[in-house]
Amino acid sequence: MNENRKVEGVAKIYSGIQKEICRTLEEADGKATFVEDCWEKEVGYGITCVIGQGDAIEKGGVNFSFVRGEFTPQMESILGEKANHYSVTGISSIMHPVSPLLPIIHMNVRYFSLDNGTHWFGGGIDLTPHYVDVHEAGNFHRNLKDICNRYDPNFYPRFKQWADDYFFISHRNETRGVGGIFFDRQKPGETISFEQLLAFTMDVARAYPTLYGNIIQAKKGQPFSPSQKEWQELRRGRYVEFNLVYDRGTKFGFDSNGNAESILISLPATAAWEYKNAVLPGSAEYETLQLLRKNIDWINLS
Amino acid sequence: MNENRKVEGVAKIYSGIQKEICRTLEEADGKATFVEDCWEKEVGYGITCVIGQGDAIEKGGVNFSFVRGEFTPQMESILGEKANHYSVTGISSIMHPVSPLLPIIHMNVRYFSLDNGTHWFGGGIDLTPHYVDVHEAGNFHRNLKDICNRYDPNFYPRFKQWADDYFFISHRNETRGVGGIFFDRQKPGETISFEQLLAFTMDVARAYPTLYGNIIQAKKGQPFSPSQKEWQELRRGRYVEFNLVYDRGTKFGFDSNGNAESILISLPATAAWEYKNAVLPGSAEYETLQLLRKNIDWINLS
Repeated sequence: MNENRKVEGVAKIYSGIQKEICRTLEEADGKATFVEDCWEKEVGYGITCVIGQGDAIEKGGVNFSFVRGEFTPQMESILGEKANHYSVTGISSIMHPVSPLLPIIHMNVRYFSLDNGTHWFGGGIDLTPHYVDVHEAGNFHRNLKDICNRYDPNFYPRFKQWADDYFFISHRNETRGVGGIFFDRQKPGETISFEQLLAFTMDVARAYPTLYGNIIQAKKGQPFSPSQKEWQELRRGRYVEFNLVYDRGTKFGFDSNGNAESILISLPATAAWEYKNAVLPGSAEYETLQLLRKNIDWINLS
Repeated sequence: MNENRKVEGVAKIYSGIQKEICRTLEEADGKATFVEDCWEKEVGYGITCVIGQGDAIEKGGVNFSFVRGEFTPQMESILGEKANHYSVTGISSIMHPVSPLLPIIHMNVRYFSLDNGTHWFGGGIDLTPHYVDVHEAGNFHRNLKDICNRYDPNFYPRFKQWADDYFFISHRNETRGVGGIFFDRQKPGETISFEQLLAFTMDVARAYPTLYGNIIQAKKGQPFSPSQKEWQELRRGRYVEFNLVYDRGTKFGFDSNGNAESILISLPATAAWEYKNAVLPGSAEYETLQLLRKNIDWINLS
């Protein structure tokens, strides 16, 4: 199969999974439905599915895109590859919940293909609780480990570490949340085939709405206070900081002249900042801050 | 005078002006007062003056800092200079108003000195209205032009253009606001002395609270609606985007391991994002968006 048809094949599969994700998340929310918005620019096209004002989900988006372009000197130096053109197709999604007791969740899978014959998969899924729930984090990581183990026993430890390092807000010296898995530049080769890597990303993408649905279900109806809501706004501020300062997907989107509205659907509906917000030692907010650290073994902690 | 004593002299002057700025802004607000917070890190020290919950000012900060450090290869490549150490001292300030009818204002002056004997001044001041007021913008620019003309008739046209180019949100294809002046790498030389450049930055810094005070005074008591307040939140979102994605001061602060809380005092108390917010043609919001363009001659437009 030539590479052009390969990337088109992956795009078709991802585009189908996007629809599955939306259906599952709609069921999990129980009220809100996705609105589909197609866009086309010189660089390619995409389908942005937007959800909002739900019972559980306040604002979220599921993006599918298929973009081609010139492989710029800047990309060359970042990726260490020589090529003339690239194609990339992927799904990227973030959900911001209404309740501060529910976590923010993010998932992304992508297939990157160069006209020099090189291609790879990348992606990740991670959880950003406003209040860390050790049991929830452990369960999330256990599920990701199970998916990873279907393909390679080294995937989970490597990709969990990668997530810890990637989803890190250096200037705050804290992780974005409880992490998950992150992987990039996974090329088919002797140890794993193109088909297996594709299947791995499909499993990750499909697990995403189910895992979030379970989390929503577990906390349905739990009351929260205005001060917990204020804390949520401050934590959302941190999420904005990560996405705008560090996130490579956002940067790549801007650099490749992508669709700004679709890229920034990752941002919450609202966020807040306060100079030196102080938390009381021993409070739930304090405990959360103690757990925003790398190298926590969530599976064995819970 | 040796360079070490020179940079210490500038730091002393800037630190004094910081106090003047705070006094003038307190008078302009009429209710809120600044709280002074000193910080010290390995790289240097600073005084962060924070104001909030005022009649006119919702959240703002006036930072003074004096930082020294190793001149990294990264700085070398950005600045095109070879040196071992740098010192930088400056004032940086942003005010976010309560009323959506008042603009956000920002000012920064700095003196950057390398141990290779090179040194320069930089800075700027710019206005980001939630609703563009052509008369207010014209008046603001006229005042800046007057200050510039005291030193060099080329300053205003050059620095106004520089601000248009610098305060630009590429991914939105819009300017941050109505601009102002921006300048960097202004080295003393044949056409202008160290003393004149220092005096120029002092004039800019001192004009800042006075100009903002006049703007507050002009709009005191003007009522605004909840929908105008919502628009303000969305525009604050854009301000956050600029500061976290493009602002070099923020980047330099993070890269030089500066004080994150002081650096991010530039962010508003709250902000909002909405997927593809639509404005009605002919509305005040629509008119504002039409005016977020480079190369508008505000002085002759008003």
